[in-house]
Amino acid sequence: MASQSSRPALKSSPAPTTADLRRDNLGRVLRLVHEDGAMTRAAITERLGLARGTVGVLLDMLVRGGLLVERSPELPGTRGRPSPVFDTVPTGATVLAVDLAVEGFRLAVVGLGGRVLSRHEWPWDPAASTEQSVATLVERLRGAARRRTAAPYQAVGVACWGIVRGRDGFVHLAPNLGWRDVALGALLSDGLGAGRAGAGGLVQHVVVANDADLGAVAEYRRGAGAGARRLLYVHSDVGVGGGIVHEGTVLGASGGYAGEIGHMTVDPRGVRCRCGAVGCWETEVDERALLRAAGVPDPPEPASLAGAVAGVLEDARAGRPAAVEAVRIVSTALGTGLASLVHILGPDRIVLGGYLADLYALSPVPTRRVLQERGFSAEARDVPILPASRRADASFLGAAEYALEPLLSDPAAVLRPR
Amino acid sequence: MASQSSRPALKSSPAPTTADLRRDNLGRVLRLVHEDGAMTRAAITERLGLARGTVGVLLDMLVRGGLLVERSPELPGTRGRPSPVFDTVPTGATVLAVDLAVEGFRLAVVGLGGRVLSRHEWPWDPAASTEQSVATLVERLRGAARRRTAAPYQAVGVACWGIVRGRDGFVHLAPNLGWRDVALGALLSDGLGAGRAGAGGLVQHVVVANDADLGAVAEYRRGAGAGARRLLYVHSDVGVGGGIVHEGTVLGASGGYAGEIGHMTVDPRGVRCRCGAVGCWETEVDERALLRAAGVPDPPEPASLAGAVAGVLEDARAGRPAAVEAVRIVSTALGTGLASLVHILGPDRIVLGGYLADLYALSPVPTRRVLQERGFSAEARDVPILPASRRADASFLGAAEYALEPLLSDPAAVLRPR
Repeated sequence: MASQSSRPALKSSPAPTTADLRRDNLGRVLRLVHEDGAMTRAAITERLGLARGTVGVLLDMLVRGGLLVERSPELPGTRGRPSPVFDTVPTGATVLAVDLAVEGFRLAVVGLGGRVLSRHEWPWDPAASTEQSVATLVERLRGAARRRTAAPYQAVGVACWGIVRGRDGFVHLAPNLGWRDVALGALLSDGLGAGRAGAGGLVQHVVVANDADLGAVAEYRRGAGAGARRLLYVHSDVGVGGGIVHEGTVLGASGGYAGEIGHMTVDPRGVRCRCGAVGCWETEVDERALLRAAGVPDPPEPASLAGAVAGVLEDARAGRPAAVEAVRIVSTALGTGLASLVHILGPDRIVLGGYLADLYALSPVPTRRVLQERGFSAEARDVPILPASRRADASFLGAAEYALEPLLSDPAAVLRPR
Repeated sequence: MASQSSRPALKSSPAPTTADLRRDNLGRVLRLVHEDGAMTRAAITERLGLARGTVGVLLDMLVRGGLLVERSPELPGTRGRPSPVFDTVPTGATVLAVDLAVEGFRLAVVGLGGRVLSRHEWPWDPAASTEQSVATLVERLRGAARRRTAAPYQAVGVACWGIVRGRDGFVHLAPNLGWRDVALGALLSDGLGAGRAGAGGLVQHVVVANDADLGAVAEYRRGAGAGARRLLYVHSDVGVGGGIVHEGTVLGASGGYAGEIGHMTVDPRGVRCRCGAVGCWETEVDERALLRAAGVPDPPEPASLAGAVAGVLEDARAGRPAAVEAVRIVSTALGTGLASLVHILGPDRIVLGGYLADLYALSPVPTRRVLQERGFSAEARDVPILPASRRADASFLGAAEYALEPLLSDPAAVLRPR
């Protein structure tokens, strides 16, 4: 009791009932296997600190509900007869994970346990209005959902690059798509009959979230952020987005907006940002900032941007002075913003996604130097910076974690005959 | 289940046992009365959703343990015989709350329920080394603690203006005191025998925390921040400190450093900060920034600073142009930094402490204008900004909340005969 570690739990909360406990325990078992993969009954019992008999009952419910399966372990060369393990049934609960990209929308079907089951991609119709684009999205999702209605749980998770209200998935601004004030969460929920099981409802749950928040969750749960207590995830291609996982909670996910780290002011005499303000951090560190610093003209087609950026990085790797200098300038600006965020948020790990992973791999020194100069503590000066490890799938995996949440919190509600 | 509101609980946790539940429920009852004040048995039963009989048993334990008392309510003119209420016994659990100020250290004895029972103040010996100053502090606290050993629970909470590691109360830097790398948490715990009940231990718990974090807790629990979901507390006199209460949790309190919002970079060609870096936000918004903007020389004595600042604010109120312009400049810089923090953190309320409360009351428009210009959503543009309401006692009340936490989490451990 003498330790400092306790911190105020600043809210009184109602006491849980026995029914709450049973529901929570069912969710705990499912969440454990979903997160950490197949394990034996003994391992589950030990990890959760529950009675062996209780775990048996819960596992039986989850197996009968089609969410878990009992199978022999994949351990070659084990002596004796190995204990069977319980694993997730990927098709037992599926998420239609959507990534709204500039060129079109990508769809992945992600199963329980974070397994990507299939992928699809459709281009946007350039002539379509926002309303028409959303209607097309709804239609595609209805089609995909109809093919999978046998699963006990089906949900939709949408990653949107832009300013998204956590509470209801309202998209205030998605600059890459040109969308403004679109009630995407509500439109998708209506279109797919979310929560209207047995009354034409195709899915139980729809969630729309900021792409960087989802990337942060994916890296935290299944990538380079695993085990961090206070993870700062910074993603950039066009623009900069951030996701903050603080002690297991995504900052701002419960409502409102947060993580718009690209728009902190770093220079009152800086460049005008596409948000309208002057001197936002992203004007100094995103892909366009690198091209500008290198004197490379901004390509007219957004699709060619990545190639132009790769060219600058390649030139820098080859030692061409203009590119080397551009990389140094942008890496320093990266360090300045990261130092501010370290001051404000105190992360114990930073994960860089998008082109920043490549930039930092090529040139870590200017970034680290700023942190050394500005950090107040060894923790701040030496905070580990890692490249994102789930770059291709981060949005999908993060969207799946969000969309599976109601199931993981209360599997009994799903297992009940509908 | 169709709503968007669920968010990932990103960690699997062990299941609670029946003993955990009983302990938690005892804490819930005590916390409720501590936070919300005297209430009837029926009100407690309803608020916590527990069985009436259970609440009776818990209340009985807390009354017998000397933490709660049953008394008649203070309701004049109520008809019939009013139900008795349960209230905290302020002397049942006391915190020696310490505020380490420039001139000396202030001590308040704060009782359960957040009641300030007494106040004391001692000047520092200007000739003393840091070690000697800490030793004096320990001696004073030992004396104060010895006078109160009859209480079932006694703890120490220290507010330190500076960079404090949440995990163990290690003070990396307390610039106003000139302290650097002082293991204050450990030194106080050792000196007071924290947790060594019956073996010379005078207190159960010692906690050292950043002053702004404690101010945030005080405002959140008992002040202008009550009811906020994501509270940003910004305090300034010399320097700027911040505390962030996000969904009931203090950011960074559990370990590491956070909330050093005064040192985010706002201008690469700005003023050199006392931290050594250039262009920190606090160089544009703290008391010295206001004096500099007004052309008033920095007084040599730190104690005269507040008077000089009050003079500038008075001049501005009287319409003297230099002071009006200084207030406009600093208020604008306040807005710029707040806008960045709103982007990053998405607060639904901002509370201003220290001289910023007076500055904003005098001149809200420049600050609000920046938020209007830079905010991405109505929530961000119109985020409420309030003056701190517990300015004199914020550090004490916050320190008390931290130091009472072990008791509120597990009263049974205290009620057990020692």
